[in-house]
Amino acid sequence: MRPADVRQRVTGPTAGLAPGYTQANLIAVPTDWAYDMLLFAQRNPKPCPVLDVTDPGNPVTVLAPDADLRTDVPRYRVWREGVLTDTPIDATPYWRDDLVAFLIGCSFTFEAALVAAGVPLRHGRNVPMYVTDRECRPAGRLHGPMVVSLRMVPAAMVDTAVRVSGLMPAVHGAPVHVGDPAGLGITDLGAPDFGDPPVAADGDVPVFWACGVTPQAVLMASKPPFAITHAPGHMFVTDVPDSEYRMT
Amino acid sequence: MRPADVRQRVTGPTAGLAPGYTQANLIAVPTDWAYDMLLFAQRNPKPCPVLDVTDPGNPVTVLAPDADLRTDVPRYRVWREGVLTDTPIDATPYWRDDLVAFLIGCSFTFEAALVAAGVPLRHGRNVPMYVTDRECRPAGRLHGPMVVSLRMVPAAMVDTAVRVSGLMPAVHGAPVHVGDPAGLGITDLGAPDFGDPPVAADGDVPVFWACGVTPQAVLMASKPPFAITHAPGHMFVTDVPDSEYRMT
Repeated sequence: MRPADVRQRVTGPTAGLAPGYTQANLIAVPTDWAYDMLLFAQRNPKPCPVLDVTDPGNPVTVLAPDADLRTDVPRYRVWREGVLTDTPIDATPYWRDDLVAFLIGCSFTFEAALVAAGVPLRHGRNVPMYVTDRECRPAGRLHGPMVVSLRMVPAAMVDTAVRVSGLMPAVHGAPVHVGDPAGLGITDLGAPDFGDPPVAADGDVPVFWACGVTPQAVLMASKPPFAITHAPGHMFVTDVPDSEYRMT
Repeated sequence: MRPADVRQRVTGPTAGLAPGYTQANLIAVPTDWAYDMLLFAQRNPKPCPVLDVTDPGNPVTVLAPDADLRTDVPRYRVWREGVLTDTPIDATPYWRDDLVAFLIGCSFTFEAALVAAGVPLRHGRNVPMYVTDRECRPAGRLHGPMVVSLRMVPAAMVDTAVRVSGLMPAVHGAPVHVGDPAGLGITDLGAPDFGDPPVAADGDVPVFWACGVTPQAVLMASKPPFAITHAPGHMFVTDVPDSEYRMT
């Protein structure tokens, strides 16, 4: 499937779809919250690497000029005062003229590079994601914990996984933690906060990357009046090749 | 000299001072222009890689917590409606409670890495800088041309210079142009818009990097009511080691 096909047809998780094209997290907030959001992203570049910011009300991004951000994400989440109120597949009825949309890099983008380097990907339909006990650096009215994605990596490949993803800082870069989940305050790897439970082989080590679902944990903690995001794992597929965000 | 010594004693250009510590460009704008500035930086990461943004009125940055941004830049420029109105060594009389300061990466930061890789630095007191004919991507009310810094590099070392600086995207990264200055609309290399004229040896090639003076060209083009910047080449010396911004 090409990116436009995924945008128009898919309503489920997008891991592995339109291989070679960058996928992005979405968070749209009212204009009077946009500075706090952009500053939050600047202060927390590992979970929130910004790929594009739209002009107020305009549902078009340079990352896919023919796409419509109100309809072309497989599934949305609608937030009021930090509470999830709906999960539509079409956000048009909720869109507002004062919404500014942030497209944030996604770790799916470095998965092809991991595989090409010989690092097997064990997760299935959706990657496991966890809310950690690590607080982000606040910005204005926005604060909250970092969310991470998990990949189980054979011990001998951890260095390769670190090196390869580290060369892609626009899509979360190197892992934020390797090994014991307790180091991030995660008590049960089998019960992720978002996505599917992990699949591990003997000798695998848990490797955690900062995750673009972090803004959703921030919404829950900071309770802005309104926001629209993607549903975790249900990404906006852009027209930009993954290689655009690789430093080699 | 240590960073704090430079901040307290120097009133001239800072190239080569406090080696090993990151230097930064400064632009401070009123709060109601801060979103446009931050968005401009996000949309133009090569000239404007943001290292830190202060809270309104607070002249303190995490890059040097003991420093005062009102006094610790060697020389300032004060701007009104896009016109340069003063060049003080102390900005305290001009500081306002609504100013938000942006610290932007500086190419001086990769110079030590270039030298370590065998690339000679030919410029003297201050690097030559030029306003180009390349327009930045606008953001809100801010628009203007990209400014570049020039280093003359032996032809056989250009690939090394590209590779080494390319691993430091937070301080402008790889060059934006190599060779004929006309490709950037520069007609006379001997007459830079800022800094000192270039010094070249036989077989040198001009190599141009995006420059953190770009926001000053943007001030001239966009004419916000008020701003304070550093004087070109007179950088804010931080306490952060250069290695912090190196990806290797």
